[in-house]
Amino acid sequence: MKHIEGGICAAKGFKAAGIHCGIREGRTKRDFALIVSEKRASAAGVFTQNLVKGAPVVQSIRNLKDGHASAVICNSGNANTCNANGMEIALGMCELVHDHLQIDPEDVIVASTGVIGQEMSLTPMAAGMKELVGALADTPQASKDAAEAIMTTDTKLKEIAVEFEIGGKTCRMGAISKGSGMIHPNMATMLCFMTCDVAITPELLQKALSENVKDTYNMVSVDRDTSTNDTLTIMCNGLAGNEEITEEGAMFDEFKKALFECTSYLARATAADGEGATKLIECNVTGAKDKATAKILAKSVICSPLVKAMIFGRDANCGRVMCALGYAGVPFEVEDTSVTLRSRVGSVLVCHNGNGLAFDEDKALMVLGDDEIDIDISVGNGDGFATAWGCDLTYDYVKINGDYRT
Amino acid sequence: MKHIEGGICAAKGFKAAGIHCGIREGRTKRDFALIVSEKRASAAGVFTQNLVKGAPVVQSIRNLKDGHASAVICNSGNANTCNANGMEIALGMCELVHDHLQIDPEDVIVASTGVIGQEMSLTPMAAGMKELVGALADTPQASKDAAEAIMTTDTKLKEIAVEFEIGGKTCRMGAISKGSGMIHPNMATMLCFMTCDVAITPELLQKALSENVKDTYNMVSVDRDTSTNDTLTIMCNGLAGNEEITEEGAMFDEFKKALFECTSYLARATAADGEGATKLIECNVTGAKDKATAKILAKSVICSPLVKAMIFGRDANCGRVMCALGYAGVPFEVEDTSVTLRSRVGSVLVCHNGNGLAFDEDKALMVLGDDEIDIDISVGNGDGFATAWGCDLTYDYVKINGDYRT
Repeated sequence: MKHIEGGICAAKGFKAAGIHCGIREGRTKRDFALIVSEKRASAAGVFTQNLVKGAPVVQSIRNLKDGHASAVICNSGNANTCNANGMEIALGMCELVHDHLQIDPEDVIVASTGVIGQEMSLTPMAAGMKELVGALADTPQASKDAAEAIMTTDTKLKEIAVEFEIGGKTCRMGAISKGSGMIHPNMATMLCFMTCDVAITPELLQKALSENVKDTYNMVSVDRDTSTNDTLTIMCNGLAGNEEITEEGAMFDEFKKALFECTSYLARATAADGEGATKLIECNVTGAKDKATAKILAKSVICSPLVKAMIFGRDANCGRVMCALGYAGVPFEVEDTSVTLRSRVGSVLVCHNGNGLAFDEDKALMVLGDDEIDIDISVGNGDGFATAWGCDLTYDYVKINGDYRT
Repeated sequence: MKHIEGGICAAKGFKAAGIHCGIREGRTKRDFALIVSEKRASAAGVFTQNLVKGAPVVQSIRNLKDGHASAVICNSGNANTCNANGMEIALGMCELVHDHLQIDPEDVIVASTGVIGQEMSLTPMAAGMKELVGALADTPQASKDAAEAIMTTDTKLKEIAVEFEIGGKTCRMGAISKGSGMIHPNMATMLCFMTCDVAITPELLQKALSENVKDTYNMVSVDRDTSTNDTLTIMCNGLAGNEEITEEGAMFDEFKKALFECTSYLARATAADGEGATKLIECNVTGAKDKATAKILAKSVICSPLVKAMIFGRDANCGRVMCALGYAGVPFEVEDTSVTLRSRVGSVLVCHNGNGLAFDEDKALMVLGDDEIDIDISVGNGDGFATAWGCDLTYDYVKINGDYRT
């Protein structure tokens, strides 16, 4: 598996574009993105479990029912959620793709991100559509333009592409993603659009994606706020020329590996770029009675505001980690629990047999000075292990969210 | 029901004291509290559901099994949790009460609050016990001293006392409470000690208390971190001279009213004094299909970091309220949902029929300028309603928790 350039344009037969069309007054950032496959592709998606669903989520779920898609259209600046004309706009965005590219509106994945509950109009998108289509290209820059166009409070552009082999054929997979606040995906992330030139049936593609997110995006939390618009989709157009993957086995496993490489990378990047974050937190739980238990424990730790604030403050306060494990709601061996704080500059054991230890405060301060902090927790002798990703809680999270809308 | 002075010393036959004994080096705040009933009292308690329980919680649960107690002893500065000699110290504190006051150690409620997972010694308490016992008094000041001694990051002393009648007898009930961070009680609050001179059986007392917390302390959240040491206890010594309450009925209802008056007052005060908080948030959900649903919805809203930050920033962002309702995990009528922001200076409807509304921004800013903000939410035509209390998320929360331990 090789990391390559090109993002969503790395796979054969995909073009992308991102432009500024003016969704929000006074902003000049790119806010309108398009991804197109030259061949109708197998497609799959996972979406928010929030009961309040954005109109584009409803529309995309509908459009993906047949397992195929040819394009993704997405705006930032307004989430098209909790507004009276939401479905009309979501459908209108699909029809813009049809009008300009002769793609069936039902083969379009549509997404929106931004403020919830604000009036929205199709006008700036209708006006900008010609420019957007004209900008379509299969270059690395086109992928970056699209990635930028879907960003909101993100500070870093998130994309990846990998090259791998299936049945002797060179295949490529790429993705762009956004998400910084309101990040606590449940079945999917904020927004992530993937492209791939592998030939695979829609059924297997959906299966791979649904399994994948349980260990990747669903293990990320910035603020425990599950968004109304979480969307992760993938289109596989088959242009790599491999024998179509129609059953589980070695080829399917190769495909899943590539998928994991991309989504785990972007899930980590999403946590690291959490609103206001200065540090990525990775929590590794081992020794739990099963994987499900380990996941709940790991997620409880990275979600705790007190743990998040202590990492920001470089304070090796093991009691907060123990507390977060304890209220997770699943059983574990408190008396067998040990906690180690670790980073690229060293590690320090802060809790053993369930009790806090005296430790070298200077060393702990040094370990916590890094910008990627691992919290390694052993909770017994079970086989269950899991990893979750989060970020620290900082003044800037409060600042960003105290005046986001205005 | 009349509010009166005196806190935990208002009820007949109770004395209290709070002194500085030096649990944490370099601090001069009172850190050691004692409450004593002159007569062995019916007693009940509710405690944290965190799997990691402080040693004092374990000891108090054991000591309250027989439904009676005569004293409460409590220190701040160290939670006596996740330290190897925890049970020894918890028991040692009960024995200090026995040694100085000839009270059976099993009739002592013991509690500790402060840092988790740090070494602890009985020495400062053993040395200070004589002074603590000497300071016992039934004055309003003695209640305040005890209330101060149990505070940690609290900025406000929390106490209450009420006077009411049962069967023609004047009865009194009082309480002191603390809690500011790690506040997301599950079956109980951080620490609240209540005294009362009503005669009531231990069984009915426990029933009243267990029911009460479901609508009071368990509806409060500062940061979703359920502490390891949450403890709420009450001692009723019967000195008011009322006919003992031995069954449900009018007298029991009067008692429950007084209990609700005290705990709801302190639960609100706890939310208002959340770490770093500048505003109390009260969320009232009506129209849910049942009370359980309403409670989950209300709590989801006051727990949302994005809602909390928006209240701090005086930003009437209804989308965040809708989002928090949506991920609460219970059904409601999205399309019938309305959201009103309200304070003592006015109110503004920000969401109707599930959709955001255009509203007067200046008025919203004025409404959100108050320090007590109500979020009134109607989610349909059901009978279920509930209230939850929280606070805004501020820079100071991050500051306090970035360097609490050091």
